[in-house]
Amino acid sequence: MKIVIAPDSFKESLSAAEVADAVEAGLRTVWPDAEYVKIPMADGGEGTVRSLTDATGGVLHEVEVCAPLGDKVKAVFGVSGDGKTAVIEMAAASGLHLVPSEKRNPMLTGSYGTGELIAAALDLGVDKIILGIGGSATNDGGAGMLQALGAVLTDKNGMPIACGGSALSELADIDLNGLDGRLKNVHIEVACDVGNPLCGHNGASAVFGPQKGATPDMVARLDAALSNFAAVVRRDTGLEIADTPGSGAAGGMGAGLQLLPNVVLKSGVQIVIEAVRLAEQVKDADWVITGEGRMDAQSIQGKTPVGVARAAKQFGKPVIALVGSLGDDYAVVYEHGIDAVFPIIRTAGGLETALRQAEANLQSAAGNIARLLDMKLSK
Amino acid sequence: MKIVIAPDSFKESLSAAEVADAVEAGLRTVWPDAEYVKIPMADGGEGTVRSLTDATGGVLHEVEVCAPLGDKVKAVFGVSGDGKTAVIEMAAASGLHLVPSEKRNPMLTGSYGTGELIAAALDLGVDKIILGIGGSATNDGGAGMLQALGAVLTDKNGMPIACGGSALSELADIDLNGLDGRLKNVHIEVACDVGNPLCGHNGASAVFGPQKGATPDMVARLDAALSNFAAVVRRDTGLEIADTPGSGAAGGMGAGLQLLPNVVLKSGVQIVIEAVRLAEQVKDADWVITGEGRMDAQSIQGKTPVGVARAAKQFGKPVIALVGSLGDDYAVVYEHGIDAVFPIIRTAGGLETALRQAEANLQSAAGNIARLLDMKLSK
Repeated sequence: MKIVIAPDSFKESLSAAEVADAVEAGLRTVWPDAEYVKIPMADGGEGTVRSLTDATGGVLHEVEVCAPLGDKVKAVFGVSGDGKTAVIEMAAASGLHLVPSEKRNPMLTGSYGTGELIAAALDLGVDKIILGIGGSATNDGGAGMLQALGAVLTDKNGMPIACGGSALSELADIDLNGLDGRLKNVHIEVACDVGNPLCGHNGASAVFGPQKGATPDMVARLDAALSNFAAVVRRDTGLEIADTPGSGAAGGMGAGLQLLPNVVLKSGVQIVIEAVRLAEQVKDADWVITGEGRMDAQSIQGKTPVGVARAAKQFGKPVIALVGSLGDDYAVVYEHGIDAVFPIIRTAGGLETALRQAEANLQSAAGNIARLLDMKLSK
Repeated sequence: MKIVIAPDSFKESLSAAEVADAVEAGLRTVWPDAEYVKIPMADGGEGTVRSLTDATGGVLHEVEVCAPLGDKVKAVFGVSGDGKTAVIEMAAASGLHLVPSEKRNPMLTGSYGTGELIAAALDLGVDKIILGIGGSATNDGGAGMLQALGAVLTDKNGMPIACGGSALSELADIDLNGLDGRLKNVHIEVACDVGNPLCGHNGASAVFGPQKGATPDMVARLDAALSNFAAVVRRDTGLEIADTPGSGAAGGMGAGLQLLPNVVLKSGVQIVIEAVRLAEQVKDADWVITGEGRMDAQSIQGKTPVGVARAAKQFGKPVIALVGSLGDDYAVVYEHGIDAVFPIIRTAGGLETALRQAEANLQSAAGNIARLLDMKLSK
């Protein structure tokens, strides 16, 4: 019997690899001799670097880069076990959590550090970069990232524009000739699960600006600045970056990334599924176990378990999810390949207790699922 | 497919019948056409009257009786659908919950009301009485109960002794000739899951007295009074009531009841299992579902799910438990017939939330168990 265990992390509690270990431990109490294949998963959001590094036996690298307001921060990214793929989370360099609440201002925050992380990955000679862009503090259209990689963005006086979304209103020219030449030799897969355009009422500034500290007045100015950015790009490069679905992701990072060669925006969980070669593992599995910290109706929007389930269902495999918490409206996941889902909490109590007991609770739930399935086998 | 659903109540949340309804509703989402046999269960403790009345389609009766301190209380007992069996919980008349904390004093509390409940059942012409004796406020050896049914307990002056455990120290003679003659025509099954003797360091006063308000000094005096009670009984009737296992249950009620004809002390859940003819239902079931509010290592000590499991295992049937809460040390239940157990809580939160959501959570858990089994069946 072969069992694939491919969970996401349980936020604030266990990494995906730890979840997989606990599930295996529980299943082994009933099936000590089964074949267990553990694949730490992610959806391109928080935890993607750790999961993919764990899944491939890779290593973490730490580099000092620019934080969103220009101060320095130590940021971690991962490289797969074969050394060929780097995994970067934009939030490590340009994340909202790096900016104290009172300083959050997308007029000023920039994505330069993310460009430095990409450059650091290039230094390692990878041929593929997986880039998660969730959790950013920025609304700069990826301009900072482009500058870090050699693009020259100048104002009407020919001076480089400053950091931050506001400065894009002064952009007059963009020159991509200086872009790091090594970019031509790598493929960049951007984990992007939103389809927002760069500008307008569904654009980066209007939709995501407020959570990054933008006032209504700032939203209007940021939107105009991004519009100017797209117009200058159109004029100078012929590229149309504003309307591609996902252009508005991560404060317009989805737009700016299109100025690099070999960039593709894809569903985050799909990128991970391909990176870990999930299909190869599930195709001959008897059971597929997945999980996430909380499952609800939103889980069908690009979250890991449903992604895993879809991959498993290509081969008709049964999929069981173990979750830290299960929302009232979760039943829709049944229509997306999840066959059964079990919350793991064993006793009423606060979140802190649930987080602390997550490992034991996972083992317990997995063990009982195995007992149920094993009982049936011997009936 | 036949599924027997035989749960206990979920304390402070759902009756056993309500639990069974919720489990059925969940299972029906997957197996709409299965045969469901719902048997509200109990273990002789709190909820036994309601469960057995629900299980047999019986009715509840309310009578006014003496509370432990002599005031009046309206107490409910049940009669089975066929009118032949009464179900009484001693706590309804003589329960600790009927005495305000500051008045709890087992020197004074008496079991007279429980005797009145038995008499009320006799008035209805039943031929069997099931008596649960948990939760009592008393330490009177069942003396009050005996008096209510016609026994005459007198002091050295030939005067009837007063109510309460203390008065037994003055008992000089006991005369059972006046006992209600109808008692000879009924069988009384006493739900008793403790084996304590009447007196001594494992006796009623020492073990259960303190939780009823006894100070160490009271414990000593109550123990001596019960010892005098047993000595007078021995001398006047030839009966030896002090050492029978369970004599010390319910403040010595287990001893006093032995002075009635046709009384047997048995495991509470066993009494219920026989009363609802559980074996007849589970013998051709495909699945047996049980449950209780909280399962832990103590659950093997006479609690409902393990009783149900033992009955089911006589026929080799698989048993699944659904529980409101699952203690760390629950795994021992696997050795007692429970094949798998699932906690139903779906999200971290306080007890109040868990109680409020119990019905929905039961449905959800039952549905997912059915999905898992169904997936297995079709695999």
